[in-house]
Amino acid sequence: MIKAGIIGATGYAGAELARILYGHKGVEIIWLGSRSYIDKPYASIYQNMFELIEGDCLDDRMDELVGRADVVFTATPQGFLASVMKEEYLRQAKFVDLSADYRIKDVRVYEQWYQIEHKSPQFIEEAVYGLCEVNREKIKAARLVANPGCYTTCSILTAYPLVKEGIIDPDTLIIDAKSGTSGAGRGAKVNNLFCEVNENIKAYGVATHRHTPEIEEQLGYAAGKPFRINFTPHLVPMNRGILVTAYASLARRADGSFPSESEIRAVYETYYGGEKFVRVLKPGVFPETRWVEGSNFVDINFLVDERTGRVIMMGALDNLIKGAAGAAVQNMNLLFGLPETEGLEFAPLFP
Amino acid sequence: MIKAGIIGATGYAGAELARILYGHKGVEIIWLGSRSYIDKPYASIYQNMFELIEGDCLDDRMDELVGRADVVFTATPQGFLASVMKEEYLRQAKFVDLSADYRIKDVRVYEQWYQIEHKSPQFIEEAVYGLCEVNREKIKAARLVANPGCYTTCSILTAYPLVKEGIIDPDTLIIDAKSGTSGAGRGAKVNNLFCEVNENIKAYGVATHRHTPEIEEQLGYAAGKPFRINFTPHLVPMNRGILVTAYASLARRADGSFPSESEIRAVYETYYGGEKFVRVLKPGVFPETRWVEGSNFVDINFLVDERTGRVIMMGALDNLIKGAAGAAVQNMNLLFGLPETEGLEFAPLFP
Amino acid sequence: MIKAGIIGATGYAGAELARILYGHKGVEIIWLGSRSYIDKPYASIYQNMFELIEGDCLDDRMDELVGRADVVFTATPQGFLASVMKEEYLRQAKFVDLSADYRIKDVRVYEQWYQIEHKSPQFIEEAVYGLCEVNREKIKAARLVANPGCYTTCSILTAYPLVKEGIIDPDTLIIDAKSGTSGAGRGAKVNNLFCEVNENIKAYGVATHRHTPEIEEQLGYAAGKPFRINFTPHLVPMNRGILVTAYASLARRADGSFPSESEIRAVYETYYGGEKFVRVLKPGVFPETRWVEGSNFVDINFLVDERTGRVIMMGALDNLIKGAAGAAVQNMNLLFGLPETEGLEFAPLFP
Amino acid sequence: MIKAGIIGATGYAGAELARILYGHKGVEIIWLGSRSYIDKPYASIYQNMFELIEGDCLDDRMDELVGRADVVFTATPQGFLASVMKEEYLRQAKFVDLSADYRIKDVRVYEQWYQIEHKSPQFIEEAVYGLCEVNREKIKAARLVANPGCYTTCSILTAYPLVKEGIIDPDTLIIDAKSGTSGAGRGAKVNNLFCEVNENIKAYGVATHRHTPEIEEQLGYAAGKPFRINFTPHLVPMNRGILVTAYASLARRADGSFPSESEIRAVYETYYGGEKFVRVLKPGVFPETRWVEGSNFVDINFLVDERTGRVIMMGALDNLIKGAAGAAVQNMNLLFGLPETEGLEFAPLFP
Repeated sequence: MIKAGIIGATGYAGAELARILYGHKGVEIIWLGSRSYIDKPYASIYQNMFELIEGDCLDDRMDELVGRADVVFTATPQGFLASVMKEEYLRQAKFVDLSADYRIKDVRVYEQWYQIEHKSPQFIEEAVYGLCEVNREKIKAARLVANPGCYTTCSILTAYPLVKEGIIDPDTLIIDAKSGTSGAGRGAKVNNLFCEVNENIKAYGVATHRHTPEIEEQLGYAAGKPFRINFTPHLVPMNRGILVTAYASLARRADGSFPSESEIRAVYETYYGGEKFVRVLKPGVFPETRWVEGSNFVDINFLVDERTGRVIMMGALDNLIKGAAGAAVQNMNLLFGLPETEGLEFAPLFP
Repeated sequence: MIKAGIIGATGYAGAELARILYGHKGVEIIWLGSRSYIDKPYASIYQNMFELIEGDCLDDRMDELVGRADVVFTATPQGFLASVMKEEYLRQAKFVDLSADYRIKDVRVYEQWYQIEHKSPQFIEEAVYGLCEVNREKIKAARLVANPGCYTTCSILTAYPLVKEGIIDPDTLIIDAKSGTSGAGRGAKVNNLFCEVNENIKAYGVATHRHTPEIEEQLGYAAGKPFRINFTPHLVPMNRGILVTAYASLARRADGSFPSESEIRAVYETYYGGEKFVRVLKPGVFPETRWVEGSNFVDINFLVDERTGRVIMMGALDNLIKGAAGAAVQNMNLLFGLPETEGLEFAPLFP
Repeated sequence: MIKAGIIGATGYAGAELARILYGHKGVEIIWLGSRSYIDKPYASIYQNMFELIEGDCLDDRMDELVGRADVVFTATPQGFLASVMKEEYLRQAKFVDLSADYRIKDVRVYEQWYQIEHKSPQFIEEAVYGLCEVNREKIKAARLVANPGCYTTCSILTAYPLVKEGIIDPDTLIIDAKSGTSGAGRGAKVNNLFCEVNENIKAYGVATHRHTPEIEEQLGYAAGKPFRINFTPHLVPMNRGILVTAYASLARRADGSFPSESEIRAVYETYYGGEKFVRVLKPGVFPETRWVEGSNFVDINFLVDERTGRVIMMGALDNLIKGAAGAAVQNMNLLFGLPETEGLEFAPLFP
Repeated sequence: MIKAGIIGATGYAGAELARILYGHKGVEIIWLGSRSYIDKPYASIYQNMFELIEGDCLDDRMDELVGRADVVFTATPQGFLASVMKEEYLRQAKFVDLSADYRIKDVRVYEQWYQIEHKSPQFIEEAVYGLCEVNREKIKAARLVANPGCYTTCSILTAYPLVKEGIIDPDTLIIDAKSGTSGAGRGAKVNNLFCEVNENIKAYGVATHRHTPEIEEQLGYAAGKPFRINFTPHLVPMNRGILVTAYASLARRADGSFPSESEIRAVYETYYGGEKFVRVLKPGVFPETRWVEGSNFVDINFLVDERTGRVIMMGALDNLIKGAAGAAVQNMNLLFGLPETEGLEFAPLFP
């Protein structure tokens, strides 16, 4: 039985993690950290877990936690884990960090986009970017996993095969993303009140959203060269779900032709045919968030527009599961040699 | 492995049943009936089940189905099962009927409220009303289970202990219920379009809703006498969830006093303390549909209003799960001697 | 041109008032008070008014305001106006108070339910309860109008004729109300975040909501005697709208008979046939909030349930308009001798 | 008093037109056409207009209608007006067609994208594309106005100045649009049911949406040459509102430099500074549908992303008003020499 601790267990991502771990047969939750609700019954904050999770919220005492836990999940604000991390912690427990602290290899890029100083850059190199479908083998051997961002998981998995195989010109890549409101967190802000979000759609973080460099870095590895994208997130009046609509010009081949629809489909099948949690949809069926809500799936499809020479790639996932807590559990399964799908095989909930 | 067939597998309740049975370790789905989508891949109708459920939709061929299935679930319009039921079907398979056909013992009451002729009244007497928390032992021995209505399950479980124990005067019982829109089904009707339901709340079926006699009959057994209630359902702009707010005058005891808050709480604890799927909330915490969505729980609580001498009872459940498909699986578990909670122990999904 | 000032112009009710007054041909807004946003452009807080309302938010300087304004609207927290009111203010300007400070005649009742000390009880007697359909003539002559609560307006107008005419037994009156989330205000609270309200319905303030004594007082005048009700509000995932479902036993007449449906309809027609903003719906058509959203209408109807001897009364309004800002403008029109409907004749917005 | 007839008065756009014309001081509605609801009281279909609009729905008798009306609005399915139009109709009344029948000059393009034969191509040349901000003078003299599509109005107005002034390279233009569900109409379709739309976002009509050629044609005039775009609409769980996020590469100038943010802002100001219904927002404030809902405004802004050399243009409008019925009334005002803003000066409704 893996002993798991969660720091930040009362945010939406942390709570989803608690919920998934509750249903995971190989895990015992031994620490529900929440500075905001110390000593309050966890189930009084997340009443859905009433009679299911019994303990109280604990303070963030990392020294004690690493001595008791096999794995520590940090679902905390940016900068938290970086500010406390020490070598001795990594010797005692495995870490899955749901924040951005160890996602970006170039610390200057991190500090520029996040506008905070990184307090433990010495661990960045070691950290493994926890996108299981791309870095599976490295994750198995890791001590510190940087769990990917929600938008980034969806964006990267949607475009990855076509970037990697040189099907598209990466310099033309434009990602227009739409997210449910749970991605904005549980903080009490006027902008996230029901009446402000309901009956509204807006772009935010235009040209400045912090998932941009993360997508660029990971897809840059796939392309074998750095490139820049436009990434625009939008806030949608729904609880969960991310939809990515990505546009790129098809790269001409040596003979001047474009790759065909069926060739592109074959590429996706090659990359994802064996992936349990990536579903490449049938031709003409496009991803919708309702079909993945409540699950660890990413649904992906694409369309070639011959009129413009572009391909439109689409992906959908549940931002709290495959975009956060589910991916974290998937990483944990890899870290501890469990079947990768353990505790994650629930079907999407519809409607 | 129990072989299960579903007639009406592409309505919301039928689809929820397919989803729950997919996750049930002791069941194999062998028949997904849907007259509307014969020969179409089931997962093309419910894309959430893509790569999870592989078969095509089948026509309603009951003769063939009962020969292959151990249990038949009918998530069909009122009147369907009554119109086809035969003794030989009941000899071959167990039936869990999610429609109202066998819920009401007095066939005249059924015919009056549903405005259809009952085609097989000879099976009504045998049918067991499948509210597990009330009729557990009878269900175990049944061939034909009448799965309760969504509003009725919530209403009955909320009020049952206080009616049974004579805490309230049943003639004063008023039930004001609110439901998410999945309860209205997946039929293409203008009134259920997004733009008609969103930003709206309305009462419907005022004084005429067909769950009224079902509640009256079951609570009448508890009271030991017939009585009449007011029941008013409302349509709420959300997918899932029923909330019941019930009002009744407290019955004075022989000495003229009213039962106290703590006495009433003790009654609820007596009835539900051992029930896995009924959660009596802590004092001052009232049921909300968000805390039960996606689960088989009913959350219940109450408040005594000394100013008026009334008790306000409240209950919440997920209309598609505890109000339909979850209850059906709970009944199936009882019918086949499985642990009652098998396949139903998923936590509510929030947000 | 009436010069109007608003204190509390950046709450939802205050903003709705600004929006309605912007479209009112006889009014000039000269003061947009908002302690939270002093010196910020009003249209930067309510971007819908961009290029329509030009000024900045001002501090609450009542001494200055009463010298410049003909009418002062206070859309402020409970206790604010009571704590600053003076005789000299009332000599300089008319007041329409959207808070509860002067609604309840018995100051002890106010202090008990609101749990605050009333700082200027000497003005309570003079204040006129601003429900135009009931107190029209008194309002015309008032200096200080206590604008009714949103739930109370809907509840009172729905039940008033039947209470006044003795059609129902007031001691049996139970009001189950449902409100959109704008009624909860624009304060940054976790409970009002999108993800907490969406896909949820809950009761709140059960047996303790502060609109209860206001309804009891006003309907008590109609009944000619005090009585107590149960009033339960619910929070609905929509922006605007209140629906009231009220239950009461019909009072038997001297000959033991109950009043008929048509007699009751005649009573409603008598009271509301001449009221522009009260629409008594046709038989069988029940109020829905979508049909009044964005307007100053209250839609009302009822049904007699002969099975139980009760009448079910229903009413719907837009909580920010007829339940707050529209009623305030209606009161202002009366105070200044304008046509009562001036600036309020916009049709409901659907969908 | 202008006598106006509406064919298709019970669709969402037709009903919005009726609602706006009801509030227009210079118009009398003399015909509410609806084949689906002939002889039914209009207000029984749109209950918001109860006691406001009194007549019954009429059949589509164009011969009679043109004899009585000064202006005929057709809010009808594609192909209807084209199939009945005659020269004598245009001699008797002015026409504002809310369908696509006369929007596209090249009839082959129309027939290809709409997959229907155009029955009266002889009137296409004469028809004026009714985008007031672009074609104001031509509209004034027209007999037949082709009212623009909702997505097209938003897309064109957002990009028009930059295309016209050669600020962007039109071949790189990608428009990612998001719409509320009223744009899908009031037809009873499973895909538009509440439970299918709520908690979901999806793309639809990918690379095939019929507003694409309309945008291309109109922006082609601005560019002075034809070009092709990618246009992807998405369905958002809200009633009203369209948000357009458009991406294009900045065109280098002769000296190799890019236009600056302030130069681009100056271009927008030049084009829209005098337009009542186009609001160019302040720097850093981006369009959101909530701020235009219920109004005839289009809110527009942009951002230069120097990292990628692209400009991101954004626009928001209410699809039923500026995207349909409001634009139609604006066109009518021009046709009849009324102030262009007459009957359209209502402020957006928020929340």
